[in-house]
Amino acid sequence: MAYFAIGVDLGGTNLRIAAVSERGEILEIITTSTEVGRGRDYVIDEMTASIQKLAEKHKDKGALSGVGIGVPGIIDMSTGMLRESPNLPGWSDYPVREEIERRLGSRVILENDANAAALGEFWLGAGKGMSDLCMLTLGTGVGGGLILNGTVWHGMTGMAGELGHITVDRDGPPCGCGSRGCVEQYASATAVKRMALEKVGERHAPELAKVMERDKEITAKHVFQLAMAGDPAAVEIFRTVGEALGVVLAGFINALNLPMYVVGGGVSAGWEAFAPRMFEVVRKRSFVYAATMPEKNRKGTIIAKAELGGDAGILGSARLPMLAQRGS
Amino acid sequence: MAYFAIGVDLGGTNLRIAAVSERGEILEIITTSTEVGRGRDYVIDEMTASIQKLAEKHKDKGALSGVGIGVPGIIDMSTGMLRESPNLPGWSDYPVREEIERRLGSRVILENDANAAALGEFWLGAGKGMSDLCMLTLGTGVGGGLILNGTVWHGMTGMAGELGHITVDRDGPPCGCGSRGCVEQYASATAVKRMALEKVGERHAPELAKVMERDKEITAKHVFQLAMAGDPAAVEIFRTVGEALGVVLAGFINALNLPMYVVGGGVSAGWEAFAPRMFEVVRKRSFVYAATMPEKNRKGTIIAKAELGGDAGILGSARLPMLAQRGS
Repeated sequence: MAYFAIGVDLGGTNLRIAAVSERGEILEIITTSTEVGRGRDYVIDEMTASIQKLAEKHKDKGALSGVGIGVPGIIDMSTGMLRESPNLPGWSDYPVREEIERRLGSRVILENDANAAALGEFWLGAGKGMSDLCMLTLGTGVGGGLILNGTVWHGMTGMAGELGHITVDRDGPPCGCGSRGCVEQYASATAVKRMALEKVGERHAPELAKVMERDKEITAKHVFQLAMAGDPAAVEIFRTVGEALGVVLAGFINALNLPMYVVGGGVSAGWEAFAPRMFEVVRKRSFVYAATMPEKNRKGTIIAKAELGGDAGILGSARLPMLAQRGS
Repeated sequence: MAYFAIGVDLGGTNLRIAAVSERGEILEIITTSTEVGRGRDYVIDEMTASIQKLAEKHKDKGALSGVGIGVPGIIDMSTGMLRESPNLPGWSDYPVREEIERRLGSRVILENDANAAALGEFWLGAGKGMSDLCMLTLGTGVGGGLILNGTVWHGMTGMAGELGHITVDRDGPPCGCGSRGCVEQYASATAVKRMALEKVGERHAPELAKVMERDKEITAKHVFQLAMAGDPAAVEIFRTVGEALGVVLAGFINALNLPMYVVGGGVSAGWEAFAPRMFEVVRKRSFVYAATMPEKNRKGTIIAKAELGGDAGILGSARLPMLAQRGS
C-alpha cells in the first residue's frame, strides 16, 4: 500500500512542514517563521495544526507513516527530549516527542537537523544508491551526520555526528564548544565573515572594505563573489575553508573509509572557490583517499557537493518514520 | 557443540600461533620468529604446519571454527590478498587466504593486525560487554581499529581504522604516509624515541643524554622510566604523547559518540605518564565527552588502557572465524 510522511524542519528562524511521498516527492510544503518569542507551546500549536492540515489533505496518497522533525540541537534518542538547543530556548528537558505524539496520535521521530540533512542527501541527493555517507553541513555553524549501513549513526547517547568540532588547528580561534580551532571556526558562514572582517581590519582587503562600506556588512556570499572574481583576500579566505575541510575529511576517510562524503549547507555554494584546495589537502593527508581515488569501473572515495539544498533536512526528516515503519 | 579456533599473529618479526577455546582461553601457543628473509613460501609452510599441529592436538576441544590471521598491512577483504605490507615484502598481490585455505581445508580469515587487536580487547579485554569500541595501538607506528555494532568496521575497501594518520598538527613532522603531523608522529614508540633524540641533540635533556651514552640507544621505555622519576624532558615528551592522543580521541568522541576508546600497544605502558594530559585535552576539546563523563549509574564515555597486552591480536584473530560461523 502506498504511504507518505510529514517532514518538519524546525529551525530557530523558519518552520517548514512538508508532506512527502514514499518516493520522495514534496507533495506540499508550508513555510512560516518560527515564532520562538511567543514561546514553546505556541510553536508546538502552530506546528501540530500544520501537520494535521497536511495529513488530512493528502490522505488519498496512502497511509501516513508518521512525522519526522529535524531540530537544531542534541536529542536524547531514548526519551525524545532535547538536551541542548541554543536556538530553541525553553525547549530543553521538555518531552517534545511525547507531547506531539499525544496531540497527533501518530508516530513522531525527533532527529538532529544535520543528521536529517545527511539522511536526505543519502536518500535522494548526492548519496543516492550509496551504502554509507558522511555529511558536513556548512551553515551558521558546521553540523555533521553519519549514515552507516543505511541508517543514521547516533552513537551511545545520540550525540554522534558533531563533526563541526573536530580540531583543525590546536591554537586556532576559540570555539563556542569550549575548544579551539574547530573546523566550524574555518568553514562556517560565521567564520567566513569573521575572516573577512579580520582582513578588512588589517587593511589587507580593499575590495572587501568596499563591500563593507557599501552594504554595512559582509556575508559569505559577498566573499565568494569576490573570490570568483579573483580578489586575493577573498581567494585566500576560501582557500582556508578548503584547507580546513581537507584536514577533517582526510581524517574521516582514513578512519572510516566510506564511499561518500558530502559537503552541504549555505557555504557549500562556494564549492568552486574552496574545493580545489580541499581536494589537494585530502590527497596529501589521506593515503586511504589516494589509494581509493575514483576511477572508471572501480569503486572509489567520492567527495561531492550536496544536491538538495535547503530541502535535504525536511526530506530526511520525512524519511525517518518511513524507515522506522520498515524496521518495525 | 563446543568449538575452538586458531589465531595467528603474523608480525614482521614474530610469528605466533594459538589454539583458542570458544571462551577465549589460550589452550596452547607456538611462538617462532617470522623468517621473512627465507621468503613467503617458507613462512607459509611454517605457519600451516603449526596450525595443523595445533588443530590436530586440540581436536578433543570441539569443532575447529577456522583460522584467523592478523597481518600488519592492508587487506583487500573481498579477495583475501594483501594490498600493502611493508613488513612482509613479497606478500602483496599474492592470494594468501586462498593458498592457506587450500592447504588446510578450513575457513581462513585475514584481518589487519590493529583491527584484530581491537576485536580482542572488545571480546575479552577492556571493551568486554561494550557494544562498540575504538582502539588505538601505539607500537612502532600507530594502528587503529573500530568495532561498530559488535563487528570490525572495514569500510568500503577494508582500509578503515587507519587512525594513526589523523592530523594532529598540520605543520608537524613529515610522516611515511605522505602527510605531516599525524598522531603516529607523536604517540608511537618511534616518535617517543625521535623526540628524545631531538631533545638530546638540543642539549635540553641531560638525563636522556646519560641513557644514550650508557646504552647507545634510547627506547620509549627509557623515556617512560625517566618521566616517572620526574625528569623534565621525559615528562614533556609524554605530555606531547598525551596531547596528541587527546586531540585525536576528542575528534572521535565528537564524531562517533562510542561508549569506549581503548589505548593499547607497547607505548600504552606509559599510561601514567601520558594519560593526565590526554584526559585534560579530551575534556577541553570534546563537548560530547564533557556531556558524557562517566558517572555512577549512568552510561558515559570511557577511555581505558588495553588489558590484553600482546595477546589482543592473537585472541581477536581467533575470534574472527567464530563470529563468521555464527553469522553464516
